[in-house]
Amino acid sequence: MNDGNYDAYVSYDSSNNSNMRYLTNFTASDPYVYILSRTGVGTIIVPTMEYTRACKQSTCNVLTRNEAGYLDLFKKYKDPELALAHLMKKIGGNKLLIPSSMPVGFANILSSVAEIGIDKNSVTSMRSIKTENELNKIREVQRKTEIATQHAIDFIRDSKIDTNGGLIMDDVPVTSESIRELISLKLRSLNCEDHDTIVSCGIDTSMPHCIGEGQLKSNQPIVLDVFPRDLTTGYFADMTRTISKGTPSQKIIDMYETVRNAKSLAIDMIQPGISGSDVHNAVTEYFESKGYHTSGLSGFIHGLGHGVGLDIHESPSLSQSGDILKPGNVITIEPGLYYPGIGGIRLEDMGVVTNNGFDKFTNYNEILIV
Amino acid sequence: MNDGNYDAYVSYDSSNNSNMRYLTNFTASDPYVYILSRTGVGTIIVPTMEYTRACKQSTCNVLTRNEAGYLDLFKKYKDPELALAHLMKKIGGNKLLIPSSMPVGFANILSSVAEIGIDKNSVTSMRSIKTENELNKIREVQRKTEIATQHAIDFIRDSKIDTNGGLIMDDVPVTSESIRELISLKLRSLNCEDHDTIVSCGIDTSMPHCIGEGQLKSNQPIVLDVFPRDLTTGYFADMTRTISKGTPSQKIIDMYETVRNAKSLAIDMIQPGISGSDVHNAVTEYFESKGYHTSGLSGFIHGLGHGVGLDIHESPSLSQSGDILKPGNVITIEPGLYYPGIGGIRLEDMGVVTNNGFDKFTNYNEILIV
Repeated sequence: MNDGNYDAYVSYDSSNNSNMRYLTNFTASDPYVYILSRTGVGTIIVPTMEYTRACKQSTCNVLTRNEAGYLDLFKKYKDPELALAHLMKKIGGNKLLIPSSMPVGFANILSSVAEIGIDKNSVTSMRSIKTENELNKIREVQRKTEIATQHAIDFIRDSKIDTNGGLIMDDVPVTSESIRELISLKLRSLNCEDHDTIVSCGIDTSMPHCIGEGQLKSNQPIVLDVFPRDLTTGYFADMTRTISKGTPSQKIIDMYETVRNAKSLAIDMIQPGISGSDVHNAVTEYFESKGYHTSGLSGFIHGLGHGVGLDIHESPSLSQSGDILKPGNVITIEPGLYYPGIGGIRLEDMGVVTNNGFDKFTNYNEILIV
Repeated sequence: MNDGNYDAYVSYDSSNNSNMRYLTNFTASDPYVYILSRTGVGTIIVPTMEYTRACKQSTCNVLTRNEAGYLDLFKKYKDPELALAHLMKKIGGNKLLIPSSMPVGFANILSSVAEIGIDKNSVTSMRSIKTENELNKIREVQRKTEIATQHAIDFIRDSKIDTNGGLIMDDVPVTSESIRELISLKLRSLNCEDHDTIVSCGIDTSMPHCIGEGQLKSNQPIVLDVFPRDLTTGYFADMTRTISKGTPSQKIIDMYETVRNAKSLAIDMIQPGISGSDVHNAVTEYFESKGYHTSGLSGFIHGLGHGVGLDIHESPSLSQSGDILKPGNVITIEPGLYYPGIGGIRLEDMGVVTNNGFDKFTNYNEILIV
């Protein structure tokens, strides 16, 4: 805000936009106004029905729309968004800094009533450096992730194998869907929610984001990628393990060892000042050196890792276009190899970049065959 | 698209933006490109790792970024967003229509390489008229909503009352949190997810969006507002009931009857061509006529209802600034009265506007005292 002599930073969004949640500590699925004046005092402007709840939750000053003068502006300008734009100008000032995520439709209306400038990354950058308080929240949801994963792996280990090689429990097929439900229920009992948890098996594992369907099979890779959000704090964790009920092909066993070594190699490289792309490229080169080539839909076909916080994917990125790592960055390290017709292996840990290395939050074994 | 002779409609967002999910039938938490050319063929451009999954899910043509030529553009322009903008121009054309929800930062980059125009509402309008297939999906999730609500009410009915008037089950306090968890677990077993399900009690019920906390009390209003999303279809349902374990105050009983009558009155008014604001205002007038006044944080302090679909709140609105209702609109009717220090009552049904009235999906009793 200091660069362009702006009067205020203003935003209008729901707390599904994690920058809004981060700045206001208020959660609402409908959009509300946030204004940060030059004096550094944040104000949110909410519908009347949200006032009491907002006062309880938010670290900001809270005004109802009516207190802020919205109704008069709406009567004058007839249009809800135009009235909100005038409200922002009235409270924020004539020169307003807006986030690059603001919808262009509303930004255009705002620019018709005030001078605007676009802030590209400052909140995202702020969010990428976690406070000790945030680190504790992320460690806590990582523990819950491990509990839910263990619960799933125990169930798979205890299952039986039918005459077609499919997994069964009490004569009922064990499916991607049933394991996903089991993980969700466990997470919910730990006050977390999950979406699209991956429980894929066999050739489906060669598609990194395939969530999986149908009966799980023995002697095949099963990818469990669990990334829940804590319902109270809003923070995510992220962990992937690949297992097999019974011994898989030698190709899969060799891929597993290679991915595991790649993860160690990457973790050993993590320190402040290194570029995420350098770490990513080192893993790619290691895979190549072991004969695992990447082209088209085969090989190491995604980035090595990403930041984790109030969003499951946030800054910094560890990929071909990676960022310089800084102390306080919470990141995943998740090398993977994917070969259509053969299958996929992915192993993922998460931790924080420290002043001189990496503090791994993940404390979970790596055993392929269960 | 026909208005301005645009070459294509283009969007770049994740399927958390329901317009993207609606147009592409693809679900991804990371943004991808959608291009609808004048010939009416939709194309999505996805990262390599998403290609196979996108082909399975989406109704659109699917290209990987590399197939579409992204890598060459990235090498030329160095910046990922600038490369994507050039990609959109290359495939879509020189004159591009964009959604008003596009982030202003990316829209500005796109406008530096192509002529752009903003489409305000056409996808939102399209979505507000449901197909028979969509109606069936919403009816199905409404049934699940009723099952989960019944499960919670059964538990509250079966609870005992401790010496302080608090609810207990097997000597353990029955809380907002425990009932919310019970609802979530039931919904998850029905392949649904929920967020911020409201289980509020006593004076907390006077805040419409307070999700509730702590032990539930006897002889007090308990608001259960359940609005899950089906994990497979992505569609929401929405229902609210207010109950009391034991007889509440006469004020609460009278408010309940008034809100129930207001709901009937509103439902009887629903037909194509009527304005949502007229129905909202009729309810406000009815409340006034019964002596229930609205001012500040007291009375009928929210809109009467809203559209429901791939978003929990979508077009049309039934409020002071309501829309004209059309056949195929799926809407809620949810009058409520809120008085700080006394409590709140809300009752909510959902259904579809038909050619000559309203087909209510909600099939659930209204009994205050359980």
